[in-house]
Amino acid sequence: MAVEVVYRSSRDPERLFMDKAEADRHDKMLELAESLAGVLHKAVPSLSEDQVEELGIFMARNRDTFARAFKNQPDALGELFAEAE
Amino acid sequence: MAVEVVYRSSRDPERLFMDKAEADRHDKMLELAESLAGVLHKAVPSLSEDQVEELGIFMARNRDTFARAFKNQPDALGELFAEAE
Repeated sequence: MAVEVVYRSSRDPERLFMDKAEADRHDKMLELAESLAGVLHKAVPSLSEDQVEELGIFMARNRDTFARAFKNQPDALGELFAEAE
Repeated sequence: MAVEVVYRSSRDPERLFMDKAEADRHDKMLELAESLAGVLHKAVPSLSEDQVEELGIFMARNRDTFARAFKNQPDALGELFAEAE
């Protein structure tokens, strides 16, 4: 038996990471997802809490692709489901 | 009476512009909005057509803010409703 260090984001306490950098990436992703959920809910009030949460997490997980799409490459979005199929 | 040139995006034929650059910006905005609506609908299938269209247009109209948020400034999103209030 031994004591070991694990890391977690306070936004998602159940998910533990052995690697601090990975916990930090997870925390940053959730931070962006929460901000997105907030503005999207204000923009389209008919969305449910679950829907804005799903939208936020989907976009935050794919933030690099969305960054390119919003900057000047709308075609970048085509990659999102091409990979999954 | 005189003949004059007006411009429009084929994506939104009812909206006419006197200025070609403005018509072009409108077309680019709608192009991005359509791409966004498509991927968001695949990501969150419970959304309605109207909801994904509203989301796409809202984000495409604010594309510079979203570009910064996705790149490395999630706080940029705070500006979106601060201005309106």
